Amino acid sequence: MEDYLAKRRALIAKDRAARLDSSDRDGFASDASCDEADAYVRRIREAEALSVWGPESTHTHGEGDATHLFPGMAFLTARDIIIKTRLFKIMSKMPKGALLHAHLDATVNARVLLDLALKYPAIHVQTDALLTTSNLDSILPQFCPLPRSEWTEHASLTDQSYESKTWVPLSAARDTFAFGGPEGFDRWVIGALTISPSEAYRTHNTTVKIWDKFASTFRVANGINKYFPLWQEYFRQFLLSSIEDGISYAEVRINFWYRLMCTADGEETVPHREWLEAFDRILHDVRAELAAQGRADEFVGCRIIYSTIRFVPPEELDWYLEDCLALKQEFPDLIVGFDLVGHEDLLRPLLDYLEPLQRFVARQREVGVEIPFIFHAGETLGDGTAADMNLYDALLLNTKRIGHGFSLIKHPELMALCKERGVAVEVCPISNEILRLTSSMPAHPLAAVMNHGVPVTLCSDDPSVFGNMGLSYDFFQVLVASEINGLKTMGCLARDSFKYSCLPEDEKARATALWDKQWRKFIEGLFHEEIADEKLRGTVKN
Amino acid sequence: MEDYLAKRRALIAKDRAARLDSSDRDGFASDASCDEADAYVRRIREAEALSVWGPESTHTHGEGDATHLFPGMAFLTARDIIIKTRLFKIMSKMPKGALLHAHLDATVNARVLLDLALKYPAIHVQTDALLTTSNLDSILPQFCPLPRSEWTEHASLTDQSYESKTWVPLSAARDTFAFGGPEGFDRWVIGALTISPSEAYRTHNTTVKIWDKFASTFRVANGINKYFPLWQEYFRQFLLSSIEDGISYAEVRINFWYRLMCTADGEETVPHREWLEAFDRILHDVRAELAAQGRADEFVGCRIIYSTIRFVPPEELDWYLEDCLALKQEFPDLIVGFDLVGHEDLLRPLLDYLEPLQRFVARQREVGVEIPFIFHAGETLGDGTAADMNLYDALLLNTKRIGHGFSLIKHPELMALCKERGVAVEVCPISNEILRLTSSMPAHPLAAVMNHGVPVTLCSDDPSVFGNMGLSYDFFQVLVASEINGLKTMGCLARDSFKYSCLPEDEKARATALWDKQWRKFIEGLFHEEIADEKLRGTVKN
Repeated sequence: MEDYLAKRRALIAKDRAARLDSSDRDGFASDASCDEADAYVRRIREAEALSVWGPESTHTHGEGDATHLFPGMAFLTARDIIIKTRLFKIMSKMPKGALLHAHLDATVNARVLLDLALKYPAIHVQTDALLTTSNLDSILPQFCPLPRSEWTEHASLTDQSYESKTWVPLSAARDTFAFGGPEGFDRWVIGALTISPSEAYRTHNTTVKIWDKFASTFRVANGINKYFPLWQEYFRQFLLSSIEDGISYAEVRINFWYRLMCTADGEETVPHREWLEAFDRILHDVRAELAAQGRADEFVGCRIIYSTIRFVPPEELDWYLEDCLALKQEFPDLIVGFDLVGHEDLLRPLLDYLEPLQRFVARQREVGVEIPFIFHAGETLGDGTAADMNLYDALLLNTKRIGHGFSLIKHPELMALCKERGVAVEVCPISNEILRLTSSMPAHPLAAVMNHGVPVTLCSDDPSVFGNMGLSYDFFQVLVASEINGLKTMGCLARDSFKYSCLPEDEKARATALWDKQWRKFIEGLFHEEIADEKLRGTVKN
Repeated sequence: MEDYLAKRRALIAKDRAARLDSSDRDGFASDASCDEADAYVRRIREAEALSVWGPESTHTHGEGDATHLFPGMAFLTARDIIIKTRLFKIMSKMPKGALLHAHLDATVNARVLLDLALKYPAIHVQTDALLTTSNLDSILPQFCPLPRSEWTEHASLTDQSYESKTWVPLSAARDTFAFGGPEGFDRWVIGALTISPSEAYRTHNTTVKIWDKFASTFRVANGINKYFPLWQEYFRQFLLSSIEDGISYAEVRINFWYRLMCTADGEETVPHREWLEAFDRILHDVRAELAAQGRADEFVGCRIIYSTIRFVPPEELDWYLEDCLALKQEFPDLIVGFDLVGHEDLLRPLLDYLEPLQRFVARQREVGVEIPFIFHAGETLGDGTAADMNLYDALLLNTKRIGHGFSLIKHPELMALCKERGVAVEVCPISNEILRLTSSMPAHPLAAVMNHGVPVTLCSDDPSVFGNMGLSYDFFQVLVASEINGLKTMGCLARDSFKYSCLPEDEKARATALWDKQWRKFIEGLFHEEIADEKLRGTVKN
């Protein structure tokens, strides 16, 4: 029996040897207080698995009789419950490290975006057809900042006299909205900017259908986002809310497919280089503000993965590649990678762009810059489909990381390559679930990928659409869906994110050292606020 | 470019080198006609992906507006559509080899079981409460064969005068059923013996809830199954319908937890050894019938994996282990393995039974027999839970195969062991989906497991409950959910099933040779009926 149990322990250890938390790599979590905090978090998780997610739970999500609660369940249904848990409060306070996969134009809360838009009289709204109670869910608002000369005085979007495709000032449209007044208007707009539980889990419950809705949220938001004064506030909001959530560094994908933004005067004339000038200025401002508050250590910076969309004809890609090269030369610290984005199942495979991408590599050498590919690949349920095959091309083209890599688990040789080269998979748990690649977190391949020792980093992807602002929600879902993961695992995931970032080596070291300080503070805080309290009462509080 | 494509082909080949269909192992599918048949099946699949499963499809499943069709979708919703496809017709005709994971008491169509029951006046039915329109879905029928002296003359189960827990003769209860007459009775009973789409996908849409319903179907069926005369007909039906579906050999799990069945006279006195005598006799009869029809080659045989349930207290397991040993000694060709079954997430882990199981191994040596363990393990979404950890114990205890192994993909070392030792995973695609481990076939880990080179065999598990009679449905779902799998892959899966069976080596060789003959006939048939026809018309028919 003893002999058997010893063999069993050895087998388990061998099986888990490749995990990122298998050995205490850098000693950041080797002291006794980390062990105690890890054990504490496991007790909380066990208690909440019953009190919050168990059959006795008093939590409901208001969807009638079909309430199926369990840890790691469908996020849009679970979010209101998650927020109330102690585990989520702990995850919120944990330092998250780097956010390496997020699309900037989908990072700020939809409510905040709408409030920003309402500040600008240039922003107008129109629809393709007169709204009715029955088409309200299917007709989308279209926004545009107009030049002063084109501003209108139409009072309402919902008056019977409204002619489709007529611009109405945003505030007026809101004030006179016939379907529930301003609140109804806000519901309608926010509904068009986000995915609802009934869309994800009922009406659009396939990858293809939910992508239709998903893509439409970008079209709607872009009408507002392309207003350059607003975009700058938007970026600032993204930075501040990320820092608030414990994210100290980000590499955001900016979609440069749109070649111009609109000036304050509503003229579509702002080129990419001016976006980056503003980006740099805002970074500087935020850094200065934090320093003034004595919080400089909380923020390392933010850089850009230049992105365009996989529907660009291959012969047009060269324009973007040259644009990217020029921006890299002017803003060498800002541009750190190149990517092609969009729905892999429907749009062009990487292979279609092989020639321009290979030219791009040669051009980098000529010009003397380095812009690694950081490709989306394998964000699909397909097995051997073009989207799945993108993984081969991403790795053959030496991608630095893999965006999503949902289907990577199907590729033993590619997993070996990722391990060998240190290519991290940017895993977006909540995004994958809402976009119907997995029905819930326990069914997500992340656990398998981690056990196989493939480097991973947790990311939020498009939090304005999914509602997973920051990284706390994604960390939460991963923590509750596995008995192997503990607080230390979450720490390893956060801390490793710098390793896989595009920061220069010295800045990686500095960012990691700052994170280590945050981590120690976090663990100490946990002791003061939580663990001491538990000791007093002699039991886990719920 | 050429250089890149050559490297790409090499990488893909290396990545897929471990797949069971990567090389043409035994040459069974190496001739040109197999290549052509494989290509033909791929064309059919591609055409039907649009005509049957695409947005233009005219197929509906009568669930209103939320029809989300795609290949490999939820089986209970898709079944009526699957049946009409050409691909399913081809899968139906394909020789399937061995069925290595099926619970005998859940293998015969529920309608057939009810018809069998109606032949026997000894079988009575009762309920715990008077049925009403509102409780009809939640009150289960309870069946029992009664001794002649206890037969009743109650006329109705639904009369207001019915006292709960009073036995009513089955035919009388059916004839007088107040909720839709005999048809309503049949719907009620069959609903209690099977899982409906709305249960799997709505009201019981979690692994825990659907297992409640799943387990109840066995309790209901057992009231009928335990009638020995009927059980013998049931087993015969299982064999005949399996052979009809192209299955030539089976290793069925029989649940010996019940120590006795009821005699024709309704006395609960038939011990296990009489079950096996009958089993052997029926096998012999079916073999003789087939021989008389010149079909002897279609059937190799059927053997038994002795099973009891994971709620047996460990100290009681010894009784079953000794029973199993005794049966093995008396019926050495019938008993070929031992297993513990039931819901792994809730019942005892294998580790609880370590001592009796180790004693069992020693006792086998003493007695001079060999009964390999063939354990269910890892039928769970858990990561590091007791159910997931069962995989360690199954392999440490030298399991010959693994039942389900759904969570095996999370265990790199255990996957390596399976490959090294030739331990096949008995994958039950449709079972896993209906029991909510995966939302659809494309999300199932099978593709990953196959690409990693872990031996697998496809199985139906509990077809009477799921409606996936035979193996054609499971083969179909696997074929449509991957672009890599083709007809040859399906052939490899079927043919390999003998390799992982418990047949003695010489019988494996004979069974495989017979299968090869069936395969050649199948490929020839495909040419005559389908491919020639396509050539005539110059296009794929739909």
